[in-house]
Formats: sequence, structure tokens, C-alpha cells
Amino acid sequence: MKVLGISGSLRKGSYNTLALRAAQKLVPQGISMEIADISQVPMYNDDVQTAGVPEAVQALREQVRLADAVLLVTPEYNFSIPGVLKNTLDWLSRPPQPPFEGKPVAIMGASPGVVGTARVQYHLRQVLVFMNTFTLNKPEVFINLAATKFNEQGELTDEATRKIIGELLLSLQKLKQRIV
Amino acid sequence: MKVLGISGSLRKGSYNTLALRAAQKLVPQGISMEIADISQVPMYNDDVQTAGVPEAVQALREQVRLADAVLLVTPEYNFSIPGVLKNTLDWLSRPPQPPFEGKPVAIMGASPGVVGTARVQYHLRQVLVFMNTFTLNKPEVFINLAATKFNEQGELTDEATRKIIGELLLSLQKLKQRIV
Amino acid sequence: MKVLGISGSLRKGSYNTLALRAAQKLVPQGISMEIADISQVPMYNDDVQTAGVPEAVQALREQVRLADAVLLVTPEYNFSIPGVLKNTLDWLSRPPQPPFEGKPVAIMGASPGVVGTARVQYHLRQVLVFMNTFTLNKPEVFINLAATKFNEQGELTDEATRKIIGELLLSLQKLKQRIV
Amino acid sequence: MKVLGISGSLRKGSYNTLALRAAQKLVPQGISMEIADISQVPMYNDDVQTAGVPEAVQALREQVRLADAVLLVTPEYNFSIPGVLKNTLDWLSRPPQPPFEGKPVAIMGASPGVVGTARVQYHLRQVLVFMNTFTLNKPEVFINLAATKFNEQGELTDEATRKIIGELLLSLQKLKQRIV
Repeated sequence: MKVLGISGSLRKGSYNTLALRAAQKLVPQGISMEIADISQVPMYNDDVQTAGVPEAVQALREQVRLADAVLLVTPEYNFSIPGVLKNTLDWLSRPPQPPFEGKPVAIMGASPGVVGTARVQYHLRQVLVFMNTFTLNKPEVFINLAATKFNEQGELTDEATRKIIGELLLSLQKLKQRIV
Repeated sequence: MKVLGISGSLRKGSYNTLALRAAQKLVPQGISMEIADISQVPMYNDDVQTAGVPEAVQALREQVRLADAVLLVTPEYNFSIPGVLKNTLDWLSRPPQPPFEGKPVAIMGASPGVVGTARVQYHLRQVLVFMNTFTLNKPEVFINLAATKFNEQGELTDEATRKIIGELLLSLQKLKQRIV
Repeated sequence: MKVLGISGSLRKGSYNTLALRAAQKLVPQGISMEIADISQVPMYNDDVQTAGVPEAVQALREQVRLADAVLLVTPEYNFSIPGVLKNTLDWLSRPPQPPFEGKPVAIMGASPGVVGTARVQYHLRQVLVFMNTFTLNKPEVFINLAATKFNEQGELTDEATRKIIGELLLSLQKLKQRIV
Repeated sequence: MKVLGISGSLRKGSYNTLALRAAQKLVPQGISMEIADISQVPMYNDDVQTAGVPEAVQALREQVRLADAVLLVTPEYNFSIPGVLKNTLDWLSRPPQPPFEGKPVAIMGASPGVVGTARVQYHLRQVLVFMNTFTLNKPEVFINLAATKFNEQGELTDEATRKIIGELLLSLQKLKQRIV
């Protein structure tokens, strides 16, 4: 199973990007993970879309299409989805043949605070209803107090978090297998 | 009372931008409305923010700060806030002195469909809890079936919609006056 | 496929209950539908649950368990789930072996207003994430302006609504078949 | 300022009811708090409402009307509002003269888990948009890992939690004073 991982933060040292890289190494047998780059996606504008889909978007659409499943890793900005991530999804949801359609999708998020990314994950789930995915219900992965869970090299060292990310990926694989 | 209007769509012929322009002409006595331009706001990136707030963002922050109230006019993309608008709010919510803090804010939205923009308006309300505004509860303005409510010159001709936008602005003015 | 239908309103002439009865007659070949009675479910209280699950709840749990799929038909009260329906779900989500687990679930709703039941359906979807169901994404069925869509005998006469309910049931059947 | 406190749980040993009792003792000068009893409120049914508002509901309506502000303390059931609490709000939102209209309202919640009650508090905020209250934005009070924060006598002993509840009440008082 090929999973495409997308981080919702453009910041270099982003805990979410670090968590995504950790997930890439934690994949169970039978899964491989590629990481998408959304930094070149322009602001969505319907006039631009009509004139011709930008190259960076075209490439991303293709990456999603070729993936068997998607892992979205997102910070919470102002109690909701980062504009940067939402803008990418806005492009990827356009016809013809929106590439997310029918795909299994898992969500996780890291945040410096205690509540974690509970609020944003439900907004994202609502977006995925429109995008018509099979969104994984469980386990939910909220990496809170993120600063305490990575070492100075940016590696995820917290054992409980490593374990639950492994479970998330395994559950995503099982979900994929259950859908015919 | 000076109101700053922000449209969540970059499309030239956007019904939301047209609705905002209509609102600008429908302001009751004692209100003036300026319309913001968010098309030059770059993607939010914490590294960029740390290096120095971009000029387009700086100018917008100043516009919001000088306004007595804000009117957000937004389409619904994938059941949530357009990335373009959310990205703008992400910039405008950063310290120091986030300019939305404590301001009265009203919301409206136009959409081609029947349900209107009900879904996005509640996501926006959640974002505004973080931004610590006084968000107007009523009336809710959902301009549905938008294609039937503007003429070929892009003017809002539907009487019921013109009336409720007038009420929204009046309610925003009253809200402003109630807060000391 | 056996579907259990649950209406979120206790009112005798409820449009939602009428819509559920209409759905019962509109089932495509291969589906049969039973309608649950939630009027005898007491207020959830953890102390009561610990002392022994009430009979009405026990019976409902059994009905859900025997169903292949569930159709929730709900009005919108105060922009969210009716307390009566939520209270029923609160009972049905308790261990051991919560009966909704892994079941396909479809949602529809009727309301007298224009916006329909868009707001409540997303709250319900969030609840179903916890209950770990396969919740149908499409089609969404919002029966708005309900008074115009039923005749004096309480029969659903609006053709577009009858058609989309048929599609909803068919999609629920297909969803059931896709999950192994 | 007279505050009415409402707990969303009927369980005797409920952490939310305990937190509400703690709040009652932590009120700053100039505030007094009464605690409502919602255990006798029947299931909402529009037919019953039309026939005559039940006594327990009538009494509650009067309590809310006499209060200057309301404090809602709620657990999270299945990622949303407990049916019991929502049912009470369903009764209290009916015309004529819904008693919550225009009142300042604060929210807090306790839960045994890590995420706390983040999910339910946003559903409650959406309900309060309909009920047209002035809902306090900050501080948010999520009493997570509740079992560690009360002693065997059911008293709130966690200092950080006691402090933030005090701040919540003070902010509610300030909000009340700002609205004329």
C-alpha cells in the first residue's frame, strides 16, 4: 500500500512535518510512504483554475491519484485548518475526477498546547465528507505538548506517540483492505 | 462607524465580492464601509512571519485596526472556509496586538446551491472564538441560489436579500453600541 | 439488507417521522426497513446504567445489533442534535459491544426553514466518528421548506425529495456491499 | 451579579457537578451563584410543549430569567453535548421570551481523558448562537484527567484549575459589565 503524507505546515522545524517524517519510518510491513510538497501551490482562484491548472497542483493531483491512501498531518491555526493546507485541498477537490474521491484517509496532528489538535481534526473531517473519502475514525492521534516529544535532532522519541502512530498506519491499512 | 469588508473569494465575478459591494451601498446612516484586498497576502509560514511581516499583511493589519467593525463575506469551499480567507486570518491573528481582538464582526455568504453557506459560517465562528471577537449572532445571511439574485451588471437585485443585508449592518451597529 | 430507521422527533406529526415512513416505502429491492421507537428511553445517567440497563434501551440495542445498517432522520433543534435523539445515542454507545460499531449509517433531515438541517447533520457526523460507524457521505438529504413537500395525509409528495431518498438508500446498500 | 450554574451530568459523583460546586465557592466578590436542577426535565416533545410547559421546565425558565449570567458545566458524551443537557436547552430555547436571549454565558467542562471537553464546547457554542447569548470566548476551561484533580471528598484541589475557574468567573463578570 502506497500512502501519500501531507503536512499542513510550511515551517521548516514544524512538529507536524517532523511527525510525518517519523510516521514515514514507522510504517508497518507492506506500506511505503511518500511525502508531498505543498509549498509551491498558489492561492486558489477560480479564474486561474479555469485558465489552466498550475503545474504544482497538477503534480500533486497526480501524486494523490497514484496513492492508495493519504495521511494528513496538521497543526491547528486559530481553532481550525491552516489556510495553507485548506488551500491545497481546495485545489485538489476540483473536477474532473477529484483524486481524493473514495480514498482511505487518516489524520493526525501535533501542537505545543494541552488540548492538541482536537478542534482542527473535526473541521478536516467535515471537509473530507465533501471530498468523499473513507476517513479513519480510530485511533485519534493528538500529539500535544509537542516540544517534549521530539529530541534536538527532530526525531520523535516519545514511545507512546510512536506506538499510536504505528497503530494509526495499521488501521489505515486495514481500512483499505476492508473496502472493495 | 467604520466597517472593513473582506471577501473570501479571489474570483473576479465572485458572488461574494458582489454581495460585499452591494452591502457597501446598503449601509445605514452612520456607517461607512471600506473593502479590503487580500489578493497579495502570501501563504502563512511561521519562518516568514519571524523574519518580518510581509507588507501586504502589515497593511491589512492596519486596516483592521482602524476599523470599528468587520464584515466577512465568504463562499463555502468543501464545506469549510476557503484556504485563501483562512490564510489571511492566520496572518491577522498573530501577536503582537492581533487587530481583530474585541471587535464586532458580522458574517454573510453567497453560494450557487440551496443550502447556502451554513457549514462554512460555523467554522468561521469557531475561528472567531480564538480571535476573541464579538461575533454577531443574528440575522444570519445565507444568499443561496446566488445566480438568481444578481443582474447582469452584477448588482444585487433580490429585495429580500437587500433587506436582510441592511438588517445585518444595522445589527452590527447596535452590537458595537452595546459594547463599552 | 435490514435497515433500522430512527427519527429524532417525538412529535406525532413530525416531518422527520413522516419522511422516515416515506423512506420505508421507498426502499429499493433487497432492502427492508424497521422503525425504532425511542419514546421510552429514559434520561441517560451513569448511575442508572451501572445499576442495570433499562428495558427500553436493551430492546433498542438489540434492534440496532440485528440491523445491517441504520438510517437516522433528524430535525435540527437550536442548530444541533435534538436532546431526545442524542440521549438515545448516549445510551447506545456504551460498552460492552456498542451496537453501532462498524455499521453503515445514513443521515437525512427535514425542517420548515430554508437552510434545512445542514448544521445538525455535521454534529451528528462527529458523534458517529466516536461511535465508529461507516457514515455515508453522499447524497446529503436536506428536506427544507418541509410543509410544502407532504400532503394532508402526511405522505411525501415532492418528487425530487422522493428521488433523492431513493438514491440515499441505494447508496447505503452499496456502501454496505463495499465493506468486507 | 447572580450566576446560574447548570451541570450537564445527572451522575451523583459527576466531576462536572463537583467542578460546578467548586466554582460556586470560588466566585469573586460581587458574584453569587445558584445551582440548577435539571433532573426533572422531561424529554422535549413539541406536542407536550403545546399542551402546556411542564412545571420543572417552567421553574428552570424562571431561574434563568432571574440570573444575570449562566455557567454551563458539561461532560462530553460521544464527542458532543450530553442528550440530557441538550434536551434542557431545547426546552429553554422555546418562545415566548426564551430566557437565555442576550445573557452572558460561560462554559467549562471536565473529563477523565487527555483531550478534555474541547469537542463538546464548540457544539455548545453553536447552540448558543441560536440562543443568542453573549458567550465568553476566554479563558477556555478544560479540566482534563479529572480523577487527579479532586480529593476523596470531591473537592477540587488542583491549584491551576482553581485559578482558571476564578479567572473564568471574573471574565464573565467583566463581560456582563461591558454590555449595556
